[in-house]
Amino acid sequence: MKIFAGSSSTDFVKKMCNYLQIEPGQCETFHFSEGNTFVRIKENVRSKDVFIVQTIGLNSNDQFMELIFWIDAFKRASANSITVVMPFFSYSKADKKDEPRVSIRARVCADCLEVAGADRILTMDLHSPQIQGFFKKPVDHLAARPLLCEYILSRNLKNFVVASPDAGFTKSARKFAAYLKVPTVIGDKARFDHSENASILEIIGDVRGKNAVIVDDFTLTCGTLAETALALKKNGAEKIYAVVSHSLLSEKSLKTLEESCIEELFITDTVNNPLVKGHRKIRVISVAPLFAEAVKTICQRESLSRIFESVPPEVLKASTI
Amino acid sequence: MKIFAGSSSTDFVKKMCNYLQIEPGQCETFHFSEGNTFVRIKENVRSKDVFIVQTIGLNSNDQFMELIFWIDAFKRASANSITVVMPFFSYSKADKKDEPRVSIRARVCADCLEVAGADRILTMDLHSPQIQGFFKKPVDHLAARPLLCEYILSRNLKNFVVASPDAGFTKSARKFAAYLKVPTVIGDKARFDHSENASILEIIGDVRGKNAVIVDDFTLTCGTLAETALALKKNGAEKIYAVVSHSLLSEKSLKTLEESCIEELFITDTVNNPLVKGHRKIRVISVAPLFAEAVKTICQRESLSRIFESVPPEVLKASTI
Amino acid sequence: MKIFAGSSSTDFVKKMCNYLQIEPGQCETFHFSEGNTFVRIKENVRSKDVFIVQTIGLNSNDQFMELIFWIDAFKRASANSITVVMPFFSYSKADKKDEPRVSIRARVCADCLEVAGADRILTMDLHSPQIQGFFKKPVDHLAARPLLCEYILSRNLKNFVVASPDAGFTKSARKFAAYLKVPTVIGDKARFDHSENASILEIIGDVRGKNAVIVDDFTLTCGTLAETALALKKNGAEKIYAVVSHSLLSEKSLKTLEESCIEELFITDTVNNPLVKGHRKIRVISVAPLFAEAVKTICQRESLSRIFESVPPEVLKASTI
Amino acid sequence: MKIFAGSSSTDFVKKMCNYLQIEPGQCETFHFSEGNTFVRIKENVRSKDVFIVQTIGLNSNDQFMELIFWIDAFKRASANSITVVMPFFSYSKADKKDEPRVSIRARVCADCLEVAGADRILTMDLHSPQIQGFFKKPVDHLAARPLLCEYILSRNLKNFVVASPDAGFTKSARKFAAYLKVPTVIGDKARFDHSENASILEIIGDVRGKNAVIVDDFTLTCGTLAETALALKKNGAEKIYAVVSHSLLSEKSLKTLEESCIEELFITDTVNNPLVKGHRKIRVISVAPLFAEAVKTICQRESLSRIFESVPPEVLKASTI
Amino acid sequence: MKIFAGSSSTDFVKKMCNYLQIEPGQCETFHFSEGNTFVRIKENVRSKDVFIVQTIGLNSNDQFMELIFWIDAFKRASANSITVVMPFFSYSKADKKDEPRVSIRARVCADCLEVAGADRILTMDLHSPQIQGFFKKPVDHLAARPLLCEYILSRNLKNFVVASPDAGFTKSARKFAAYLKVPTVIGDKARFDHSENASILEIIGDVRGKNAVIVDDFTLTCGTLAETALALKKNGAEKIYAVVSHSLLSEKSLKTLEESCIEELFITDTVNNPLVKGHRKIRVISVAPLFAEAVKTICQRESLSRIFESVPPEVLKASTI
Amino acid sequence: MKIFAGSSSTDFVKKMCNYLQIEPGQCETFHFSEGNTFVRIKENVRSKDVFIVQTIGLNSNDQFMELIFWIDAFKRASANSITVVMPFFSYSKADKKDEPRVSIRARVCADCLEVAGADRILTMDLHSPQIQGFFKKPVDHLAARPLLCEYILSRNLKNFVVASPDAGFTKSARKFAAYLKVPTVIGDKARFDHSENASILEIIGDVRGKNAVIVDDFTLTCGTLAETALALKKNGAEKIYAVVSHSLLSEKSLKTLEESCIEELFITDTVNNPLVKGHRKIRVISVAPLFAEAVKTICQRESLSRIFESVPPEVLKASTI
Repeated sequence: MKIFAGSSSTDFVKKMCNYLQIEPGQCETFHFSEGNTFVRIKENVRSKDVFIVQTIGLNSNDQFMELIFWIDAFKRASANSITVVMPFFSYSKADKKDEPRVSIRARVCADCLEVAGADRILTMDLHSPQIQGFFKKPVDHLAARPLLCEYILSRNLKNFVVASPDAGFTKSARKFAAYLKVPTVIGDKARFDHSENASILEIIGDVRGKNAVIVDDFTLTCGTLAETALALKKNGAEKIYAVVSHSLLSEKSLKTLEESCIEELFITDTVNNPLVKGHRKIRVISVAPLFAEAVKTICQRESLSRIFESVPPEVLKASTI
Repeated sequence: MKIFAGSSSTDFVKKMCNYLQIEPGQCETFHFSEGNTFVRIKENVRSKDVFIVQTIGLNSNDQFMELIFWIDAFKRASANSITVVMPFFSYSKADKKDEPRVSIRARVCADCLEVAGADRILTMDLHSPQIQGFFKKPVDHLAARPLLCEYILSRNLKNFVVASPDAGFTKSARKFAAYLKVPTVIGDKARFDHSENASILEIIGDVRGKNAVIVDDFTLTCGTLAETALALKKNGAEKIYAVVSHSLLSEKSLKTLEESCIEELFITDTVNNPLVKGHRKIRVISVAPLFAEAVKTICQRESLSRIFESVPPEVLKASTI
Repeated sequence: MKIFAGSSSTDFVKKMCNYLQIEPGQCETFHFSEGNTFVRIKENVRSKDVFIVQTIGLNSNDQFMELIFWIDAFKRASANSITVVMPFFSYSKADKKDEPRVSIRARVCADCLEVAGADRILTMDLHSPQIQGFFKKPVDHLAARPLLCEYILSRNLKNFVVASPDAGFTKSARKFAAYLKVPTVIGDKARFDHSENASILEIIGDVRGKNAVIVDDFTLTCGTLAETALALKKNGAEKIYAVVSHSLLSEKSLKTLEESCIEELFITDTVNNPLVKGHRKIRVISVAPLFAEAVKTICQRESLSRIFESVPPEVLKASTI
Repeated sequence: MKIFAGSSSTDFVKKMCNYLQIEPGQCETFHFSEGNTFVRIKENVRSKDVFIVQTIGLNSNDQFMELIFWIDAFKRASANSITVVMPFFSYSKADKKDEPRVSIRARVCADCLEVAGADRILTMDLHSPQIQGFFKKPVDHLAARPLLCEYILSRNLKNFVVASPDAGFTKSARKFAAYLKVPTVIGDKARFDHSENASILEIIGDVRGKNAVIVDDFTLTCGTLAETALALKKNGAEKIYAVVSHSLLSEKSLKTLEESCIEELFITDTVNNPLVKGHRKIRVISVAPLFAEAVKTICQRESLSRIFESVPPEVLKASTI
Repeated sequence: MKIFAGSSSTDFVKKMCNYLQIEPGQCETFHFSEGNTFVRIKENVRSKDVFIVQTIGLNSNDQFMELIFWIDAFKRASANSITVVMPFFSYSKADKKDEPRVSIRARVCADCLEVAGADRILTMDLHSPQIQGFFKKPVDHLAARPLLCEYILSRNLKNFVVASPDAGFTKSARKFAAYLKVPTVIGDKARFDHSENASILEIIGDVRGKNAVIVDDFTLTCGTLAETALALKKNGAEKIYAVVSHSLLSEKSLKTLEESCIEELFITDTVNNPLVKGHRKIRVISVAPLFAEAVKTICQRESLSRIFESVPPEVLKASTI
Repeated sequence: MKIFAGSSSTDFVKKMCNYLQIEPGQCETFHFSEGNTFVRIKENVRSKDVFIVQTIGLNSNDQFMELIFWIDAFKRASANSITVVMPFFSYSKADKKDEPRVSIRARVCADCLEVAGADRILTMDLHSPQIQGFFKKPVDHLAARPLLCEYILSRNLKNFVVASPDAGFTKSARKFAAYLKVPTVIGDKARFDHSENASILEIIGDVRGKNAVIVDDFTLTCGTLAETALALKKNGAEKIYAVVSHSLLSEKSLKTLEESCIEELFITDTVNNPLVKGHRKIRVISVAPLFAEAVKTICQRESLSRIFESVPPEVLKASTI
């Protein structure tokens, strides 16, 4: 088992390797002044099963190009198999032609990863489950939900509901609610008349006097979360929390968070974002142990199912919840 | 422009060709007693741009195998380009791994169509928009919605709402509502407590004293439609109608429809189903003229956008609304 | 070694697993009312070498679609290798363009199996040996002949000849004759003048006072066999038997057999046909042990050559001849 | 329409271009002393439909490598389409694994032609019809038979039969016989007892007092033809002729022909063989006009069927029969 | 003929379209805050031959990802053909494994362009001619040399030599010298003893009292040019100029240029670099008219050869030399 | 570890197997009179890692076709992996379009090897390093230089320089010089004025009173070597030697060598050339032990880097220097 870190996931790989008590693979990346990226593997990988970890987010294009160069380098260095580990895959949002004459960018990325030589993909919380079908190679698709729920449970919140910020995320929100054994409410921007004034957000379901945890797969501007929180508040909710798998917050987004009525935002570390470190309203739950456990399970040729729906105790412990 | 009919779409092609005032291409299909299917093109297609129309539904596997043999036959007969026209693609429902160790069958089908030699796909109302990304070749994706809405408008319903049978279809339902300039309501099976007793369907939005049109992409058993209609009734709705793009009704499903409080069901003819002909509760709106218009537009190298969101008058007329 | 049964070969796989003293892999197939097929693997196959057994015959299209979904499911479940076992491949008859503008369906099927992810094919008595060349992946091509000959020998027929039903099958018929150490005769419909009245079948070679065993690769209607038997009779043959690898007999074909002067028909179990069970004129010789031995040999990385031309004693015994 | 000659078919292309009254494309080939082959196109082919003619026989490997280099050169020179014209494709004989651990060389060649960029194949009398299925691209498969038959008819032979040199070629021989309206006889080496002494060739059918025309797809050593002729003679035949599509005769083969009881051998010019020019026992019928007609038909986007089974008068005339 | 500008080449496309007197295609690019790039075509391109112009340099990774999204968008919008125009392809420098376990990044990029759907590449002065072989699709490879030479000639330099900055570029430098009809000298860092002290640059050839024009394919830091210029000066050269096809100068590089003994640097506009605009030591010669002429020639199905080695007068004029 | 010899490398494989103390794999090749090549593996290779050794030179086309048939035969015989060992790859010289409308033949060959099923390439001293990028599969690229240098050192030459026969080979020549710790001189045909009279070869660097070793990657006619030697002599050099990796000398070339002022020519045995055996001016250094060591290293899953830049003692010994 040999795990290598692309430049966007060096910390993440350190955490994975700590969990597994192994050393990360030796390698290095350079970004040249004309914009080109260069990668070099610094140890023998001939006939090895290699895992290359590179998250795609915040600096997506540099990260993606670096990733396909890594794959090619491992392939030409005669690795036996190459598993691409993308804790976050930001282009997974670009999964359809929702207007004429645009690209289905997630499929383009999938094709590039495969043409470069990827043998398997390990990732987390893709924007839609159909994206697995963009790949011909096997995709192991982890969920942050069990771990995030465990964190929420560890916080001993009382009398709370799970809130979906829009109708489309309801199905996912219900899975959170089922794990947490609490009700679901739905935020919905659309009015039930035909004026379609989207500025009024309705909350479907009763939140009066209850706490609420808004769930979503990713946040960029914190806008939807803040708006939903405000609507929940107006509907009588008490304390409001939010939880997302992938956080891409800019300084401006953090200001939005600060000014919102969200008490705390729970995120994972799939995206390496120095801005969130130590932020008073943000708690980061590491999914690196979960990815490490997945890698170990793959190498032991066992089924990943057991970590899809629940959290192994040793992973829970390592995530320092 | 040459349009050929696979054995599942002979009537449909006749309607297309009537609209275009051309003759269908000469061809024939045989099904042998050991289960094999055989296809034969009966006219020269060398360097022609060929459209082969074959819906995939009710007898999906025979239809699909026949289709890939058609593609191969046209390719080996030196057609210049082969456009696969699937008014319905039933495997589009199989678009994700929603449990471990299953196939993403829509991707398998897409790969088979492409390996056989398809150059373009023309289809209608796929189960999810991501399926376009399963294809490397261009997909022209028609919507039945404008035509179905025009039919509804032609019926002069008064004081009505559009009803989505579940949260997941809300986004589509709203597009119907926007076209019809009426409000949307949502049927939702999930209770807002954690008992998750799915047998009670709630209606989100006010329907008291109003008529309702339930919308969905396809119906197999008529079960969801009937159940939603009942809930609407219980919430005080007056007359209830339903409209779906693709209908796969069996005799049993028709009985469900009969016994339901649905006044009428509006469907298209994407699936050739003799059972629905002349049924007192069913109105069939033909989308063959729309497909014919799409084929003509493609051959004229013009943009299809104009028929995605509205219905050209000549199409409307030919659909005999 | 893990063997899974598609829905067309469950009995066959049971016999294979009995021979190997292992349990079949856990899996299940559903056929839905709109015609779609769904498959599910019910045990971990990560990094396993998987054999999926599915015969293609009698219900070819459903069986073939199911097969490519199995392959995709195993691939996405991270199997190490996927060997497709098709005891019969009915589309192997469709191996050429013998008239203009038809499909070479066997090649289409080969491409679909490979694009779905098949790594190797194990099959028996393809209609022509060239079909191996339709695949890029290795094909292990078993012959039923040694086993069928051993059965014939076990019947202690005296003073008999092997009869080929037409000139094209002569080469194969001679291989039977060589194994059995008896002469060959040829049935030939074509007269040796230019009237080409095909209704008279000539027998080339002397059969007067001899018994005869007609050999062929498959039978659908039993017509050719019955006709050849009649001609042999007219030429003075005594008792007449027939032997084919793949049997696709319908009720009507069985009636033809009943009424013919064929004493007995010897077939294998490559096609699961309930109609033939216990038929008084039919003897079924199981090739499941032979396929099981082939799978074992492949897993032991040994050469299959030894089972191409002769029958290992343990296989002979298990075939219950 | 632009036709280029590879180095093995320069004369053939001249005849084609004479027929079409056009100039051959400008190009040249070099063979270097270390064994490498180099090709150069000497005129603009951008967006042109190019036909590159190169027979594969007598010096197969040099000719085949040259051919794939031509394809690549045309592709990189931006030809619109590249049709490979192989009057003879000698590796078509290598179409199956008739013993363990050999290559299916015809499939390897097909793959190389396609990977180099061939868009279509035009060829004649492949060793088996299945070889079309080795290609994914369309294959137009001409038959020399109608033209050869016309030549035979022009010779006014009386009272003759068509003789197939073995059982496997019977089906083809019958097509000759049907065209010529004469009976067929079959030469067959196998005795009808199990001693299988192949040295005695039997003639099935009556030839006493008749002339005979032996037919085959190709001849290398003239051995089979000479042997069949001898057996026909022994069975009482009068004058004996032979006709083959592809002739690969060496000096030694010509001696065998000389010494045989064959009166004359009729061949085509698919293989450029200087040895046969002016030989007293050999008549060469040119198929270049037939190929030229095929190219013209393809460029006119018409069906080739009309030249598969009969000979257009202008082709017949140009073939100088 | 429809030319679209990627975000890195909007000015370049304007110049091309000015030359051709056409309007650029309507399209737009967005870069989102999480790093993702989005592209949209804003006019119908169905069945059109599309040219998408995007230089890859200075911000290579964003530009390259944008480019493959453009290709996919055009493909899915049913363009007839997609020609990728890369005035500069910065990853062409990454064309070999000059140390173990690195990627051949130029090949990875070529594969990604092709898998996305590029039909042809039009580019200029690749770092090595072998890179054409990384593509399966045709590459039209323009040279800036004739135009740059014409500019030099227009400056009426007297008594000058062409200087190659190292032995590896000698072959190219000689082509400049041949065009300009002047001698070549070679700068060579390696001493002719084994101490290999690279700090001393020798000039092979006589420059005393002559002017010199240093030529190279690209410059990043201006370091090699400045160093060569200094060595030329020390060897007695008078005025020293430099000319490169692709310029990637940063502010720091410009300072190096300023401080060097180079009189003037002649570059092209393949890379859009605002820093060089109006710089007192830099003259920019536009190659946009040359690319425009190439596009026109391709659309007219004519040979590009005439613009490989010389400059058409109208191009020369438009380049404002 | 199983090493098989193609017909061009039987001696080479014997030397490899001697070094490794193993038996070569059983196999045989036939060349038929019509020019076709046939290959047969004569032992079980199921699931084995196979190395097939075939040099491509002197009879390139036959050798290359044989090689792709070997690959297909091993693939269809179910080898686990197939490593193609080409000690020399003569088409590597054909790596670019240096004039319009020619083929990039090295890429065509690479594609054919890969489409036939090659999993890895092991070769030596390709004409340019970019050729690795023509392959998608890993290429292990050995250098003869260390071994050739060791041989030169073993000869105890005194006071000598390394001479590059042209500017393009300078970089490689310097690597020889660095290993041998001697200076480099460059032969350069181009005059430093614009008359470009190529017949005068200049020597850059001082050779007066010194011995010289000319280095090059291959020699065909010995012309460049002889010419360079003459120029060195005219510049005052004493004894002159030459060393090349790949030798393709014809009888005529040997005469050129004889008549030149070259004392001795040192070559390797990558090309099997009977003409050079025992030639008084030629010394052959075997690289078979080096290739054997590489194969062993690959099978042991270790890095090849250690044999790229230096010679393991056991290899040195086996090369009988």
